[in-house]
Amino acid sequence: MKNKIKKQKKAKNKKGGGLSVKKENFSEWYSQIIEKAEVTDLRYAVKGFVVVRPWGAIAIENIYDLYEKELQKLGHKPCFFPTVIPEKNFKKEASHIKGFSPQVFWLEKIKGEGKLALRPTSETAFFQMYSLWIRGHRDLPLKLYQRANIFRYETKATRPLIRAREFYWIETHNSFETKNQAEKQVQEDIKITEKIMYQKLGIPFLALKRPEWDKFAGAIYTIGSDVLMPDGKVIQQPSTHMLGQNFAKVFNVKFKDEKEREQYVWQTCYGPAMSRILASVIAIHGDNSGLIMPFCISPIQIIIVPIYTSKNKKKIINESKKILKKIKQLNLRADIDFSDKRPGEKYYEWELKGVPLRLEIGEKEIKSKKAVLFIRDTKKRQIISISQLSKLISIGNQFDKRLKQKADKLIKGKIIDCKTKEQIKKVINDKKIARCNFCSIDKSGEKCAEIVEKNIGAEVRGILANKKEKPKGKCIICNKKAKHIVYIAKSY
Amino acid sequence: MKNKIKKQKKAKNKKGGGLSVKKENFSEWYSQIIEKAEVTDLRYAVKGFVVVRPWGAIAIENIYDLYEKELQKLGHKPCFFPTVIPEKNFKKEASHIKGFSPQVFWLEKIKGEGKLALRPTSETAFFQMYSLWIRGHRDLPLKLYQRANIFRYETKATRPLIRAREFYWIETHNSFETKNQAEKQVQEDIKITEKIMYQKLGIPFLALKRPEWDKFAGAIYTIGSDVLMPDGKVIQQPSTHMLGQNFAKVFNVKFKDEKEREQYVWQTCYGPAMSRILASVIAIHGDNSGLIMPFCISPIQIIIVPIYTSKNKKKIINESKKILKKIKQLNLRADIDFSDKRPGEKYYEWELKGVPLRLEIGEKEIKSKKAVLFIRDTKKRQIISISQLSKLISIGNQFDKRLKQKADKLIKGKIIDCKTKEQIKKVINDKKIARCNFCSIDKSGEKCAEIVEKNIGAEVRGILANKKEKPKGKCIICNKKAKHIVYIAKSY
Repeated sequence: MKNKIKKQKKAKNKKGGGLSVKKENFSEWYSQIIEKAEVTDLRYAVKGFVVVRPWGAIAIENIYDLYEKELQKLGHKPCFFPTVIPEKNFKKEASHIKGFSPQVFWLEKIKGEGKLALRPTSETAFFQMYSLWIRGHRDLPLKLYQRANIFRYETKATRPLIRAREFYWIETHNSFETKNQAEKQVQEDIKITEKIMYQKLGIPFLALKRPEWDKFAGAIYTIGSDVLMPDGKVIQQPSTHMLGQNFAKVFNVKFKDEKEREQYVWQTCYGPAMSRILASVIAIHGDNSGLIMPFCISPIQIIIVPIYTSKNKKKIINESKKILKKIKQLNLRADIDFSDKRPGEKYYEWELKGVPLRLEIGEKEIKSKKAVLFIRDTKKRQIISISQLSKLISIGNQFDKRLKQKADKLIKGKIIDCKTKEQIKKVINDKKIARCNFCSIDKSGEKCAEIVEKNIGAEVRGILANKKEKPKGKCIICNKKAKHIVYIAKSY
Repeated sequence: MKNKIKKQKKAKNKKGGGLSVKKENFSEWYSQIIEKAEVTDLRYAVKGFVVVRPWGAIAIENIYDLYEKELQKLGHKPCFFPTVIPEKNFKKEASHIKGFSPQVFWLEKIKGEGKLALRPTSETAFFQMYSLWIRGHRDLPLKLYQRANIFRYETKATRPLIRAREFYWIETHNSFETKNQAEKQVQEDIKITEKIMYQKLGIPFLALKRPEWDKFAGAIYTIGSDVLMPDGKVIQQPSTHMLGQNFAKVFNVKFKDEKEREQYVWQTCYGPAMSRILASVIAIHGDNSGLIMPFCISPIQIIIVPIYTSKNKKKIINESKKILKKIKQLNLRADIDFSDKRPGEKYYEWELKGVPLRLEIGEKEIKSKKAVLFIRDTKKRQIISISQLSKLISIGNQFDKRLKQKADKLIKGKIIDCKTKEQIKKVINDKKIARCNFCSIDKSGEKCAEIVEKNIGAEVRGILANKKEKPKGKCIICNKKAKHIVYIAKSY
């Protein structure tokens, strides 16, 4: 009897053609969904290198587009740097090479060249040129970015879009006259993350200044953005780095200020990974029927499903085409499903792929000059008049707002103040983030962080970067006076 | 006295801050212009890998945009494939590996993987997956493309944007049910080249079916597009390849047709390189003052140069900003030069960078609600009323038309019918293309082509691909009956 119930439950859980239930087994659900919705294909057969199929590629292109427009608006300019970095560049900044060298793919030696690395990040490519381009204060600020694929030799388990050996990102590399300007850039970077990842794509995150032992190799400090995934682990999304004058000094990037004094520039960099952001979009918004794509990046925003018999097929297809034309004139991405599947199958597939809006058009709809509008997240249907298709724009915007509100609700109550190690353990087990007093995220706190990792299996992720929080009390680990309030979580 | 004249001439030739005269020394002019106009920077110090600076990168992005829009309109979908290709894939098609293996960069061996190549082209990456994705005739045609950087280990001299070890291209990989459909795709590819490279960017080209000995490694036949550069050498621009079933057979890409019979697909691929197209744009349109960017891809289409004294600076800057806003509302790419250089210096620099249109705005202009419009190619000035700024759109379109007409004129009369080897020699020396009777571009003609190469120092580039030309007479080399009319030129 018990077995029978279990089996029924299992069958029920695998709704939607065998999809796992997201809440019960997020990891399995994620692996299934990205393959079934044709986001990626893992069968390329080289560890950590996946094929991104059109549905994923167009979404990634659309995220690129959001980012590039924003960066350009803020005065960043695009450029392209070589994929290869000479070893001699790479080795110039001591802590950079220490941090990155285990992760580097090297090319087989070629004639006439020293060793060449595939870029894991491009500071050591950019700054060599910055030393040639920057002469005087009029050359500053210099804010360049490139859209690029980068390579990291991950030896741990890889996960598609989340942890890969090749991924698709943007890297900005900036140089300023003053420390203050550089720090402002770091804050602006956080705002860019907020504008795109949170405001547009509906992914809430914590902007955290990383502990000293967890900063970018070569940086003064790093601010990461942590997204809590449905399995209770946080994933690092765009991070921004205050490089100070570390790289400027080894690459000799100097300028003459207004008084003709020679000075080193102050530098920052910022690295949003489009493929990883898409992973969070999929993880946070998706449900048991599949993906839910934000309207602003969905490859198709509105899919038209014509419903016909052999008798009225021609007429309905024609009317559907007219409607498609009208929607495209609104600058929306739309398509008609002409395949010879049954309407139910089509519904299922487009829901799996997460298309925000679906228009169902049959005989009745054409007669009444209306269409049935199905909305992916609420799964509700409503009637829309063909003469009022321009409403689709605001319906799409509302769609994205709802996704954000839902994500906000999910995260709410997931950050728990803790007073004891046992509380932290419980919070982490409950797939939440612990917030507590901590001695320090400076070098001196590393031992306490190691205890957190060893005893609780979680990481000290840092302190809030855009808000000052003052601790009252003692470090939850060593009992010394707490200097910081930290956030502790499991991580990817 | 003679010496003095020479020196004056030399000085005159080096107008524009030491720029070489294009006609007299194209090669030097090209090398100077791409550095001075900040298109590329060669000082990265790895042979064949250059830095593309913002001015070049934005132009390349704009060419990408033209291409991607056109491809998507024609039913191609984007995707991303790994940069690395396993050796075992790469070696599957015998003639492919034979042709490409000398050009491959390999990664240093990593744990758990076989040898990995950096893609020199991605047939052997794509078709492995096509064998998994294609099942029935409903899965066809499959037309995917990727925007990618590719790597070729050039051992000859490299030239920025022209012959590099890394370049920026698009590759389409297509599969069809029938040979006929594949051949139609090849013809459509030529039309895409024509639409973008010729109609939009004003670069005339010859679509040539390559001789058997010069086709893409693994193809049945190849159609290249040859652009005659100002130094009299042709450069291969986008080429399209009929792969037949060669790759389908080794990668086992099969489908079931309507009668449930299993068949191999027919395949084609097409590879426009954005960086190389930009090289032709620079070479064909530029003049002794610098680049001339086509309006449709220029990073800045209209530059506003405010002309002020310390007295009226604020007013004129304000008015300029208002004008900029109006121009941007027309969806045009525009900017104001706020730098504190003199107007003459600004003019010089924007002419060097090839900005199509310049608006000069001073006290007089503001009073009369007009602006001086300088046009880069004709170097003429005209007056434009501020209330009629929307005219800039048609002025920009006319600009591009003029570039195309000028390029047409340049190429006209550069293809010369030849009856003897001596004539060919003269034509090639005159920096032109020879057209003559030839035994055959099939395997049997290779010996005659070798004689052309050895004796004349030129290459048999092929026969017209989109027009049948019937020869009357004998092969200019071997005197046997001519099967083809071929085009002979020096090449890059």
